[in-house]
Amino acid sequence: MEGTYSRMEIGIVSTGDELLRGAIADTNAAWMAARVFERGLMVRRVATVGDDLADLTRAFEGAIASFDLAIVTGGLGPTDDDLTSQAAAAAIGVRLARSDEAAIQVRAAFERIGRPMLDLNLKQADLPEGAQVLENPAGTAPGFALRTLRGRIVFLPGVPHEMRAMFERHVMPLLPETVRHRAVFKCFGMGESNIQDALRPVAKARPALRFGYRASFPEIGVSVTAKDAAALEEARVAVRAALGRAVFAQDDIDLPTALVRALAARGLTFGAAESCTGGLVGHCITEVPGASACFRGSVVAYDNAVKTGILGVAAAFIESRGAVSEEVARAMAEGARRALGADVGIGITGIAGPDGGSAEKPVGLVHMAVADSRGAAHRSHVWKGFDRARVKRAAAWTAMSMALGRISEDR
Amino acid sequence: MEGTYSRMEIGIVSTGDELLRGAIADTNAAWMAARVFERGLMVRRVATVGDDLADLTRAFEGAIASFDLAIVTGGLGPTDDDLTSQAAAAAIGVRLARSDEAAIQVRAAFERIGRPMLDLNLKQADLPEGAQVLENPAGTAPGFALRTLRGRIVFLPGVPHEMRAMFERHVMPLLPETVRHRAVFKCFGMGESNIQDALRPVAKARPALRFGYRASFPEIGVSVTAKDAAALEEARVAVRAALGRAVFAQDDIDLPTALVRALAARGLTFGAAESCTGGLVGHCITEVPGASACFRGSVVAYDNAVKTGILGVAAAFIESRGAVSEEVARAMAEGARRALGADVGIGITGIAGPDGGSAEKPVGLVHMAVADSRGAAHRSHVWKGFDRARVKRAAAWTAMSMALGRISEDR
Repeated sequence: MEGTYSRMEIGIVSTGDELLRGAIADTNAAWMAARVFERGLMVRRVATVGDDLADLTRAFEGAIASFDLAIVTGGLGPTDDDLTSQAAAAAIGVRLARSDEAAIQVRAAFERIGRPMLDLNLKQADLPEGAQVLENPAGTAPGFALRTLRGRIVFLPGVPHEMRAMFERHVMPLLPETVRHRAVFKCFGMGESNIQDALRPVAKARPALRFGYRASFPEIGVSVTAKDAAALEEARVAVRAALGRAVFAQDDIDLPTALVRALAARGLTFGAAESCTGGLVGHCITEVPGASACFRGSVVAYDNAVKTGILGVAAAFIESRGAVSEEVARAMAEGARRALGADVGIGITGIAGPDGGSAEKPVGLVHMAVADSRGAAHRSHVWKGFDRARVKRAAAWTAMSMALGRISEDR
Repeated sequence: MEGTYSRMEIGIVSTGDELLRGAIADTNAAWMAARVFERGLMVRRVATVGDDLADLTRAFEGAIASFDLAIVTGGLGPTDDDLTSQAAAAAIGVRLARSDEAAIQVRAAFERIGRPMLDLNLKQADLPEGAQVLENPAGTAPGFALRTLRGRIVFLPGVPHEMRAMFERHVMPLLPETVRHRAVFKCFGMGESNIQDALRPVAKARPALRFGYRASFPEIGVSVTAKDAAALEEARVAVRAALGRAVFAQDDIDLPTALVRALAARGLTFGAAESCTGGLVGHCITEVPGASACFRGSVVAYDNAVKTGILGVAAAFIESRGAVSEEVARAMAEGARRALGADVGIGITGIAGPDGGSAEKPVGLVHMAVADSRGAAHRSHVWKGFDRARVKRAAAWTAMSMALGRISEDR
């Protein structure tokens, strides 16, 4: 076990039939484990159980006996298969009772979202006696915490954005303060094993540092934790040198956010011409609050007539070189600048698959270009063995990375 | 627990510090659970433990005691933190010994991939005495199985494509053949508790059915499992009647897929004009393989100049009514049809937040319109308390649902 500074024993219980049916992967547990690890601790065990009262009760009993802090997600909703509160009461040996405080929070949550509350929804306020109510700022089901012999067991909703908000607010303060200093390097364009290889000498020379890796395709986050600030600053320089241009931010932000910030800082506007990415660039850019300061729009030119019509790509290029070609990508980037009135434009055209490939132009081939007042740059890549969704994502990220590189003087 | 007709108890143990550090989500467990569920069974429990001999041994002991079939992944490699064989031997109470059969397989695997074998790699042939060796067609580490009092415990590598190949070959034949019938209803526009309310009388009258719910914002999937086909067909009619127009597909597909299929079936083309959704509609439509048969493109008109320029929205509308208004949404839908040459167009304009709202036009207000050769329809909604990402998603789904409703005669 690496990176464990404290002796606090932490366990996770993930609940829900959807996990045991394989309908979704347990990303909640991975997210929480990463947050715990970033704090210099490591989760000891994750147990996943279904919506079955006996299984839930046994899992909670086991977690209460084994861990100083047990974190449970899921099963707090109003429906019949939401059994977490009932099982928690059984595991701790108390009754389930309506909590006035929780009922007030449920009512307030429904008022906030402007939806009528059904009587059924008040089931979410039936908690084990003695429970501490944990407010849910992002949803209608409050969480709760119970004292145990070894410490605490905390119950959070399973909806990821609700769980995350509540974890930050209610669970992070329970973790011991380890004196720590932490830097995050967000990377794109290098695989996780290449990153680890590149950092091996850095880590070897500095055994007191803890390195953590978190992949969120196609980005990789490297976190470096040190016990004192000077060691971290010294390491920061070494990590930056080892990873070079793969680092797009020294901050826990994604590439679209880094691009929006760089554009805004320079007072530049941005537009996209997207074929195979289908709107993904525009979608990701507009997930960033404040994107309207720099984002003009995107032309999703899935059909060739849209490429020639709105973007002004010469039909002769499409005929002679094909829609998936360097010439068309460059013309699309220029077309995005012109049609959208943007300072910086990108163009993306490719074959996301599963069909449409040929020997000469295989599935996974994408041409990407970026254009500004100084001209245009181009890159192409074949993402072999990637499915449609991953080709789109890899292409969108490459094009945004090219745009970020072009406007960042120091890159 | 739904859909479990057989009494074979199945458990999974996932091993590896990388899972407990949150570096990756446990997609192996989800994949195996889905394969088991497709066979009419359900995994009872997943336990995730790190590369620690005592933790591994305890987890294997627990799995051997609790399950007829226990499936373990990870820790079969040659390095020091690969402790699975050692822990398995300890859990079952036998010694670790070099298996000649496994050694032959390891040598053959290295010959196959053309890499020299190190002595270290023969560690992969040290298995618990009495183990049945399971050939690994995709990698160098063989798996193995051990007989237990209740049945079997099977050990597979953690590398996903190796695990999958071996699961198909060595684990699927161990599962009993069961007969079951299952229907899925995909819904949009009704909350999970409303759906469950509507289905309560249906379920009450048919106690032999199993109902399952899966939310994937903003869609809800309802699954109904029956022991015989006639009961399922009868239930299908009742569920459809209870949920009405909220059901957009009687199949496990998402709304963009349903829309693409409906458009393709009618030979219609589709285009979007998106403001606050930023390209999300185009992105989701182009996640569907074969979307190019009907999707012309999207104009992401984030800036008003793009709305007036490319989409031909009258500047007077924007001035008098505001960019977020019924008139502009309708003009955008018409503009999408015209600019993109599409039979069906949608227009979306709203305030995703967190800024930009006013008393008259609050954050969360979105106007949506759909237009075809017969004219246009409009709807508006205020998604109170939703963050930016959820407002975008709710608006995109509502607009796509309006388009699907318009082209589906029977809706």
